Amino acid sequence: MKGFKLTILNDILSPQDLKSLSRTDLDNLAGELRSRILETVSKNGGHLASNLGIVETTLAIHLVFDAPDDQIVFDVGHQCYAHKLLTGRQQQFNTLRQWQGISGFTNRNECDAFGAGHSGTSVSAALGLAMANQLDGKQHYVVAVVGDGSFTNGMIYEALNNCNKKNLRLIIILNDNEMSISENVGGLSNYLSKIRNSQNYFNLKHHTQSVLHRIPLVGEGLIKGTRKFKKQIKKRVVAENFFEHLGLDYLGPVDGGDLKKLESVLSEAKSKQNCCLVHVHTVKGKGYQHAEEHPERYHSSGPFDLSKGIEAKPSGDTFSAVFGKIMVAAANTNASICAITAAMTGGTGLDKFSQAHPQRFYDVGIAEEHAVTFAAGLSANGKTPVCAIYSTFVQRVYDQLIHDAAIQKLPLIMALDRCGLVPGDGITHQGIYDCSYLCSIPGIKIYSPETYDEMKMSFATCFENKSLAVIRYPKGAEKKYDRSGFIKLKGLSYQDFFNQDVNRAAHQTVKPEIVMVTYGRITENAYDAIALLRATYSIRLIKLVKVYPLDLSEMLPLLQQPELVYILEEGVKSGGIGEKLAAAIAQDEQINPGKLRIRAIENPLMEQGDLTSLYDCCGFLPGQIATEIAKIVEKKTA
Amino acid sequence: MKGFKLTILNDILSPQDLKSLSRTDLDNLAGELRSRILETVSKNGGHLASNLGIVETTLAIHLVFDAPDDQIVFDVGHQCYAHKLLTGRQQQFNTLRQWQGISGFTNRNECDAFGAGHSGTSVSAALGLAMANQLDGKQHYVVAVVGDGSFTNGMIYEALNNCNKKNLRLIIILNDNEMSISENVGGLSNYLSKIRNSQNYFNLKHHTQSVLHRIPLVGEGLIKGTRKFKKQIKKRVVAENFFEHLGLDYLGPVDGGDLKKLESVLSEAKSKQNCCLVHVHTVKGKGYQHAEEHPERYHSSGPFDLSKGIEAKPSGDTFSAVFGKIMVAAANTNASICAITAAMTGGTGLDKFSQAHPQRFYDVGIAEEHAVTFAAGLSANGKTPVCAIYSTFVQRVYDQLIHDAAIQKLPLIMALDRCGLVPGDGITHQGIYDCSYLCSIPGIKIYSPETYDEMKMSFATCFENKSLAVIRYPKGAEKKYDRSGFIKLKGLSYQDFFNQDVNRAAHQTVKPEIVMVTYGRITENAYDAIALLRATYSIRLIKLVKVYPLDLSEMLPLLQQPELVYILEEGVKSGGIGEKLAAAIAQDEQINPGKLRIRAIENPLMEQGDLTSLYDCCGFLPGQIATEIAKIVEKKTA
Repeated sequence: MKGFKLTILNDILSPQDLKSLSRTDLDNLAGELRSRILETVSKNGGHLASNLGIVETTLAIHLVFDAPDDQIVFDVGHQCYAHKLLTGRQQQFNTLRQWQGISGFTNRNECDAFGAGHSGTSVSAALGLAMANQLDGKQHYVVAVVGDGSFTNGMIYEALNNCNKKNLRLIIILNDNEMSISENVGGLSNYLSKIRNSQNYFNLKHHTQSVLHRIPLVGEGLIKGTRKFKKQIKKRVVAENFFEHLGLDYLGPVDGGDLKKLESVLSEAKSKQNCCLVHVHTVKGKGYQHAEEHPERYHSSGPFDLSKGIEAKPSGDTFSAVFGKIMVAAANTNASICAITAAMTGGTGLDKFSQAHPQRFYDVGIAEEHAVTFAAGLSANGKTPVCAIYSTFVQRVYDQLIHDAAIQKLPLIMALDRCGLVPGDGITHQGIYDCSYLCSIPGIKIYSPETYDEMKMSFATCFENKSLAVIRYPKGAEKKYDRSGFIKLKGLSYQDFFNQDVNRAAHQTVKPEIVMVTYGRITENAYDAIALLRATYSIRLIKLVKVYPLDLSEMLPLLQQPELVYILEEGVKSGGIGEKLAAAIAQDEQINPGKLRIRAIENPLMEQGDLTSLYDCCGFLPGQIATEIAKIVEKKTA
Repeated sequence: MKGFKLTILNDILSPQDLKSLSRTDLDNLAGELRSRILETVSKNGGHLASNLGIVETTLAIHLVFDAPDDQIVFDVGHQCYAHKLLTGRQQQFNTLRQWQGISGFTNRNECDAFGAGHSGTSVSAALGLAMANQLDGKQHYVVAVVGDGSFTNGMIYEALNNCNKKNLRLIIILNDNEMSISENVGGLSNYLSKIRNSQNYFNLKHHTQSVLHRIPLVGEGLIKGTRKFKKQIKKRVVAENFFEHLGLDYLGPVDGGDLKKLESVLSEAKSKQNCCLVHVHTVKGKGYQHAEEHPERYHSSGPFDLSKGIEAKPSGDTFSAVFGKIMVAAANTNASICAITAAMTGGTGLDKFSQAHPQRFYDVGIAEEHAVTFAAGLSANGKTPVCAIYSTFVQRVYDQLIHDAAIQKLPLIMALDRCGLVPGDGITHQGIYDCSYLCSIPGIKIYSPETYDEMKMSFATCFENKSLAVIRYPKGAEKKYDRSGFIKLKGLSYQDFFNQDVNRAAHQTVKPEIVMVTYGRITENAYDAIALLRATYSIRLIKLVKVYPLDLSEMLPLLQQPELVYILEEGVKSGGIGEKLAAAIAQDEQINPGKLRIRAIENPLMEQGDLTSLYDCCGFLPGQIATEIAKIVEKKTA
């Protein structure tokens, strides 16, 4: 599979270059696009299955429409690889998802009409673009490409409900690959399946009309009422499709592997007066056997060997896997525990729970808002719901957490995966806001374990104290380093003390020159920075596990009069735990640190990159931390 | 209209008491319920039109189901007045929406199964309640009552998509009164209207079936394919209703004024194996002519004279009305300005804009998420969108503001109405979180004008500096008091200085004993507190208009070494502007106030009440503020 020869793709500098290609060239180009996507994703990691499935659809879009005047908006945006390759980014495509490379999602900083990363936004954005065009008298089209998975998300319906405008040059392509990330769930998914299985549905409608014309209007028992009935039937049969109910035109379903048919249906869609939904049936993973057979495994992955494919079971524990084990074990002994995921059964580590306790497992689709309010409903009738959602998507449920959990005093545990900086996915997926916005929710408790043990303790605590709680943890595995110096404090936190001259056992009473406060994965960076400083300074390190509310009665005595309190936080500075601690210190009359610094994320708008580059950008590397501290607390070394 | 004699209602102590009533008694009871609702709302204010419309439906629910074992969940919750009167709360009903009275919404602190206040949560919550029942082997029903307005909200679809479960004892009542708050918008609304206009739709289905049976299976031109066709037609005609597509059973539409039919259809719904949606057609404002004629005016109101009704045009300006004028004037000269509202045309003051600039006005329904992403789409194609949404509902769009506006660097102005404490609506509607969670959004600017002039300046600034900005203001009118001592600072803020001995002109260089910092409506309370303190203390008052980001270079010099920095904030303490300022002070080495206090909302879970009671609860009354300050800065008076 090495050294693909790309002969046609190389000459495609813009979508216009497609329009002169022969049918054979276009077919070959589809193959080249697949090869290039496979080659790059196997090296860089990324989204594979959806991108392989949508190659012909992307070609058809760029054949029928004229980008960039016509604007293409991809829902979630991770199925845009062929689009990127066809719109002037093939030279940079090998930098996909890398630091200073191109994004794995659509992105306005490149040349995309609208960026994405979260589900369900495309039709709303596309409608905005189209209405702006209409106001300006522009004749350009806007095309929204939406996976069927995103049709489990409520925003799509809010937008569809607003698409019944006259002369709206908006076309919605429903990319129906029968899956979201996991298998699709719910009523609409069944409905789409029915449409697909009725095969020539679109033809059937025409057929129906012609047969109805042939129903005789005379004949025994049919004279009365039949004419009226016939009209009613015709109206009903011809008009009543789910999307047509909402005032859209509907075309499809069309075989998403058939470029010619795709061109034809998109051309027909262009001629419609109303907003038109084109239903395209694609195959996730198409053209790469491993991915066709295991599309969930190839939804999003790290680098892998193209010839062997991805292994079924990753070896070694991760926070997600440990979470899954915690949940299975807890549910074995506690019949009230339920697990809810929003289309992330595998990603959140709940696959084993879903098998062990299927009655208490709910995959609700990409519907985070519903997930939380549904969980609150379970809680109101005595269950102990645990919602496992990635940090970045929990941004969707701020209101539901206040309105349906906090205000109603309903116990609910939120398991936040992918917290902190998330390298490859980049700017839209950073889990760096949660500590800041969640702290304003009444009565909430937030835990940020650094280790699996701390994670287990956090869950045990939350299962016991029925309340609204968040347990947040990063992607991947716990860091392995020597934590033997840590002394456990009451509020599920720890301190360590670094001073060559002080007996560790006696350190409680010693006033350090520097107190560092941190939490979560970045504690390792603090440790490594201390290794650079400990010869010169006496340093106390406080690692918080329960980060909110802060246990001030325990913490503040440890902060007495150092020369510097240095707070290190892998999250946004504004409203973060650092600012909360600083505000608490400012309000306390006993504590008067000489200086106070918060090192947190001041510019959250970082694109994708490896963790080291992102840390570098934030001043989080151990050397940067040590240098900053030494600069603040200047000391003549002996 | 005075002195209603309620003879039947008085004896209804629980819903069980309904079941022995005669048909005549029930009809009379419906009238009594309406009278009681009218009497109370005209005195206390509240939601009128929807409550008058749903009286018979509520009676039918309590006749057919057995609350509290069967649980009733009302979407938004403001149409629950008859429900409250029938479920043991008629004695307290005169305290509706009052301090320590009963809530104007469903509330778990009373005896409701689930609380509400925001739209679209009912089906999710009810599904959670029902699934918990199923896990526990309970045979109780859960009934969700949802207005058609809420069907413009995406959460409903996320939930409906998850209702295709077997043997689910969940019944959804679509209360179709043809309106949300304003007139309903969108494709689904048109569809519901089509169903209603087809009148005996439900009967038609049976009729269709029987006619189909009579289609002859012999006859010229019909022999071939007709049998198959007939099957297809039957399946299609009988099954293809919008809600049935989603896997629900559908019954209706039913006349919501016909108690007998309502009972019959709900009984039929109980017998279904699937989750069943019952479509009820009600009349907003029913039984009170003024409200039937002007249902939007009677959606939610203050007290009014029952015999005269509510005046068409409230006299005097309000922040909402001034916002409306600012928008019309700005759009007259700037063709890029667009206004977006989420079903709140009147409430947000945009009615005149909607008439003056209909092409640039978008009411998207109760769909805040869509509103913001749609606005971002408009912005991406060069428009200047202004989204007018109440503070409490902006909680729904935290993710969209980050993901679709901030990350993409798209200019967007959010006009937040109803900020701060909102008396009558209570706990679910407080606009007290926005400053806290919005500050974590990259690049956002937040303005909190106290006066109409400051509001105008804030909008002018935002129209000029194209960026992501929030302008927040309270319900009602600006406070009238003498602000002549205020000196304008650079960053759209003000200071005043109170000291008997100091010439005002020279006060910039004088160090005060106390510096108070505040913003927005509560500035008046600070002023009144200062009136109590100024004889004893020298006080500087800083009023922020731009509250985020804080202009520290301007502010910090004004905070030099007072005995006390006292921050007064009508918003949650956690993550609020007070904590941000305190954290800034803690990080600044020049400033060292003796003491620092933040007086903000520490317990946001306050129920409804008049503003004075709520202020009292928070320690915000001028006397409370003065006493607290005097206690901190003890001084022997001369």
